[in-house]
Amino acid sequence: MALIVQKYGGTSVGTPERIQAVAEKIMRYRDQGNRLVVVVSAMSGETDRLLGLAAAMSDRPAPRELDVLLATGEQTTIALLSMALETRGCTARSYTGAQVHILTDAAHNKARIREIDAKRVTKDLDDGHVVVVAGFQGVDDRGNITTLGRGGSDTTAVALAAALKADECQIFTDVDGVYTTDPRVEPDARRLERITFEEMLEMASLGSKVLQIRAVEFAGKYNVPLRVLSSFEDGEGTLITYEDEGMEQALISGIAFNRDEAKLTALGVPDQPGIAHLILGPIANANIEVDMIIQNMAPDGKTTDFTFTVHRNDYRRALETLQKVAGDLGAKQVVGDDRIVKISLVGVGMRSHAGIASTMFETLAKEGINIRMISTSEIKVSVVVDEKYLELGVRALHEAFQLDQAITA
Amino acid sequence: MALIVQKYGGTSVGTPERIQAVAEKIMRYRDQGNRLVVVVSAMSGETDRLLGLAAAMSDRPAPRELDVLLATGEQTTIALLSMALETRGCTARSYTGAQVHILTDAAHNKARIREIDAKRVTKDLDDGHVVVVAGFQGVDDRGNITTLGRGGSDTTAVALAAALKADECQIFTDVDGVYTTDPRVEPDARRLERITFEEMLEMASLGSKVLQIRAVEFAGKYNVPLRVLSSFEDGEGTLITYEDEGMEQALISGIAFNRDEAKLTALGVPDQPGIAHLILGPIANANIEVDMIIQNMAPDGKTTDFTFTVHRNDYRRALETLQKVAGDLGAKQVVGDDRIVKISLVGVGMRSHAGIASTMFETLAKEGINIRMISTSEIKVSVVVDEKYLELGVRALHEAFQLDQAITA
Repeated sequence: MALIVQKYGGTSVGTPERIQAVAEKIMRYRDQGNRLVVVVSAMSGETDRLLGLAAAMSDRPAPRELDVLLATGEQTTIALLSMALETRGCTARSYTGAQVHILTDAAHNKARIREIDAKRVTKDLDDGHVVVVAGFQGVDDRGNITTLGRGGSDTTAVALAAALKADECQIFTDVDGVYTTDPRVEPDARRLERITFEEMLEMASLGSKVLQIRAVEFAGKYNVPLRVLSSFEDGEGTLITYEDEGMEQALISGIAFNRDEAKLTALGVPDQPGIAHLILGPIANANIEVDMIIQNMAPDGKTTDFTFTVHRNDYRRALETLQKVAGDLGAKQVVGDDRIVKISLVGVGMRSHAGIASTMFETLAKEGINIRMISTSEIKVSVVVDEKYLELGVRALHEAFQLDQAITA
Repeated sequence: MALIVQKYGGTSVGTPERIQAVAEKIMRYRDQGNRLVVVVSAMSGETDRLLGLAAAMSDRPAPRELDVLLATGEQTTIALLSMALETRGCTARSYTGAQVHILTDAAHNKARIREIDAKRVTKDLDDGHVVVVAGFQGVDDRGNITTLGRGGSDTTAVALAAALKADECQIFTDVDGVYTTDPRVEPDARRLERITFEEMLEMASLGSKVLQIRAVEFAGKYNVPLRVLSSFEDGEGTLITYEDEGMEQALISGIAFNRDEAKLTALGVPDQPGIAHLILGPIANANIEVDMIIQNMAPDGKTTDFTFTVHRNDYRRALETLQKVAGDLGAKQVVGDDRIVKISLVGVGMRSHAGIASTMFETLAKEGINIRMISTSEIKVSVVVDEKYLELGVRALHEAFQLDQAITA
């Protein structure tokens, strides 16, 4: 008898009808003999409705009170889902974050889970109940309601699964798994049966927004097998686990991309120790996050060209900041481009196989796509190219690495 | 420095603008140097919205889960009001019923308060905060969320005032106090400055629905001075206290009436011991509440006429039940009338003054109003008359007892 923690997001419980459908789905898993803990989000639209009410009260609502307000969203869903289960003859117990002691720090609106007391949940499971827990919320050590920030329900599910030593944590969402790339860009994109935590982290942070990064990190840290499935269709979804000797091994698991990039370069900066800090310090102080960083000696051997990328929304501010710094440092010129994108190959198979990067560059060159920046890590290779080449590049790479074809072990 | 518990009902906090207005009002009381605890209901319409969601889940939603659901209504209001206070520079702390340990029994949907732990509230007051508490809800001794049933927010406020030994409990509502009678029937009706708990109970149970009966009982039991005021206008409202030696004393405080009455009579029932029980037992078993009861010996001396009143909604069922019983008892006939109303004079002054009842009967007779039934208690006289005489009767009595004129001490 497996213990499964399931999480249903806001879209999956977005209407009374959908909550009924979720109840049906839960009944099927239960009838198969599983012990079930179900974590739910607020009904889609509800959090925005509540934020609208808060905005009508104050331009800057008190963070403590915002948490009290937002926590009602999931509380509504746990009650409704439990009613739907009870009316089907399945005994259910709903709990708020506070009721099952999801202890967090006191950082309102972005709290982090410290500890979960699983006793009450275990007792209910032993008594044959389905336990329904409000995601996204907890309580600090003084009894104040906290929230984990948007998307925190995934983290609640994983943390509960870890505390309960569940066999699997299943995240039900509006996609049926993790794909080799975005099917809207490459129709031949294929659902992955398995992917490692590390790969998933690279995919998520690079823009395949299926799962919250924090939840994946958490699952990896506590070794909780994580499965992404569709709320609306039946299927096996994608299982996220640690790399496994017997795991069918692809070189590349997927292609992630990010449309929201912009790049900035200070040309001809007189070379001196600490140049990176002198340039990026003021950028960080302006609260701008930097993604890729490249520094190259200029042909004259005395100056250096310094390039980095930021989110497109921060481009203007970053440019102004850099122009000021560059002037102080005696740089020749500052140039920038906010019409670029990043494409990344991700795969643990890279570790043991050379030549991935060169195949990537060759593929892009064949299509006449000019590479503007390159960055590599142990399990990914990222390139920056002109915006207009995004779709072409992704499709060419998808084909070159035969990602449309399942591996036969 | 007075400690005041204030309660604002659903209409008073029905929109974001009204919550802002309540915040303004609280600021004024606070600026006068008062320590404030504020109890709020769900925004008007919110409870019905939540009940609608529950109905979409189940024909008979699980009571435990209904409480989890409904409790979100007040939780939303406490957060919004606290935000509105904080944005005005007034530090506020919101609490759910569970957070301030409003301990109740486990009777979901109609729980009763057992105990309140006022420590946390007192600490916050000492720290200079306004404390905002969710009305209508509590927690049982196993940590389950409970609700007190509709209108329970008044009870929460009174119970908090009792636990905190507050100087006054102020109930803000959409009327500006308790009136001598319903101003829609008698435009000369006058707001009472004071009224006793006992009178208020008689007025409330007789249809002047300003306050929840349970809250008035609670306030009387713990001797909490209760004041009814308008949320929307300034004014002193009506203070409800115990009778006071120095209290200006009217014979009659007010005229209550009830439009929803129906009366039934079993004529010519052979007289025998226990007749009342034989007739009313089956009525009670049918879950029908009986109000007035009158039994008179018939002129023949061997039979009796037995009359009682019920809510008009129960009239048909009561009639069917009575017809069956009357047949078994050998009664001559069963008659009924659902076009009657009850008018009651209420006043503690009656205790020490004879002649109230005869003045009442005389007044009604002068207007040609036939009295169908009479019932008296220590502080009230009730008559049943034909429906069509309601307005005429109330106005005639209001004038006869000079209720439009304030007493000059």
